[in-house]
Amino acid sequence: MNPILTAFARSPDRGRGLARDMRVRWALEEVGQPYDVQLVSFAEMKQPEHRSRHPFGQIPTYQEGDLTLFESGAIILHIAERHPGLLPTEANARARAITWMFAALNTVEPPIVEFGLASILERDKSWYETRQPMLESRVRVRLDELALRLGDAEWLDGAFSAGDLLMVTVLRRLDASGVLQSYPSLCAYIKRGEARPAYQRAFADQLAVFTNAV
Amino acid sequence: MNPILTAFARSPDRGRGLARDMRVRWALEEVGQPYDVQLVSFAEMKQPEHRSRHPFGQIPTYQEGDLTLFESGAIILHIAERHPGLLPTEANARARAITWMFAALNTVEPPIVEFGLASILERDKSWYETRQPMLESRVRVRLDELALRLGDAEWLDGAFSAGDLLMVTVLRRLDASGVLQSYPSLCAYIKRGEARPAYQRAFADQLAVFTNAV
Repeated sequence: MNPILTAFARSPDRGRGLARDMRVRWALEEVGQPYDVQLVSFAEMKQPEHRSRHPFGQIPTYQEGDLTLFESGAIILHIAERHPGLLPTEANARARAITWMFAALNTVEPPIVEFGLASILERDKSWYETRQPMLESRVRVRLDELALRLGDAEWLDGAFSAGDLLMVTVLRRLDASGVLQSYPSLCAYIKRGEARPAYQRAFADQLAVFTNAV
Repeated sequence: MNPILTAFARSPDRGRGLARDMRVRWALEEVGQPYDVQLVSFAEMKQPEHRSRHPFGQIPTYQEGDLTLFESGAIILHIAERHPGLLPTEANARARAITWMFAALNTVEPPIVEFGLASILERDKSWYETRQPMLESRVRVRLDELALRLGDAEWLDGAFSAGDLLMVTVLRRLDASGVLQSYPSLCAYIKRGEARPAYQRAFADQLAVFTNAV
């Protein structure tokens, strides 16, 4: 039986692949693991049935037999531990790749989410225009540091890993902001991720959900 | 040779154990692994030498022979994989404990950090008083959900795990906010964590750094 992933019945990003199921779809495609998708509405996500899978009422969740997981990072690590293709086999290189998974989710993503959230939730507030440069600057500090570390390398640490997969999906959240234009090496890095056949299959599949729902 | 952890030479929390080295110290104490500490100043953290260990110029980092890691979550997972005591041995229970590690860092911590950051960085702004209830309410949404899931259990999923270790340290960041008073079960959960002998040894060690620096 295939593992079951939950995803938005109607993604608020209109099929741009920014919802967190995209990361898990991409990981599953990288390792060649077929999966089924269960779509949930915003109302269903907050009901007890979905909360039994995901205590914070979000997507994605991942069901594999008796096991139910939530948190895209944990799901991808679980997949990466069970299939070759997302983590190096050498122990130290593997630990460093996992470090990049946490860095993407815990150091780079939070200021990006805040920057994006404010433009949705606080656009009509008197302070919006004044605060945005501060939020943007917090994002730019992280991008400066990330670009410095990446240098002219193809991926963050040797071969493509789950760390790159998460970092690319995190950086893509900035697509509409214009901020990435100052970072050509990060744009090229994102493009390398998006060019992977597994990414493209995952993107097409999540887009089809949006297209079919319209 | 012992692994080497970096920590603040002068912690801005004045020894309250809120800096992220505390989490790693606690994990190392839980598994009985001795370690050495290298203190770094704020200026040193941003220099190339430290950035070679931590691209984002923060603490903690963890050096073990040839291996250098950053990100407290990744370091703790590394320790938990190499020593018994922080993750269940049964595969599904282990995956669920790792899910709680990601949930602590990626779902519960970000709104708590934002709530705390605003009270430091934006206290003098005209919008501060108006925005704080919104930030507090984002924190309360997560605490409501966490308390609902925890129920009257001792730990989040069976025995104490690295997921609880991270969740307790994340929740402790709210100590000074008064928000936790509405959540007696979460306060009791934090106290259970703080009562562990490994926590107490780690706390004393990080406090000694602050006391000696004064």
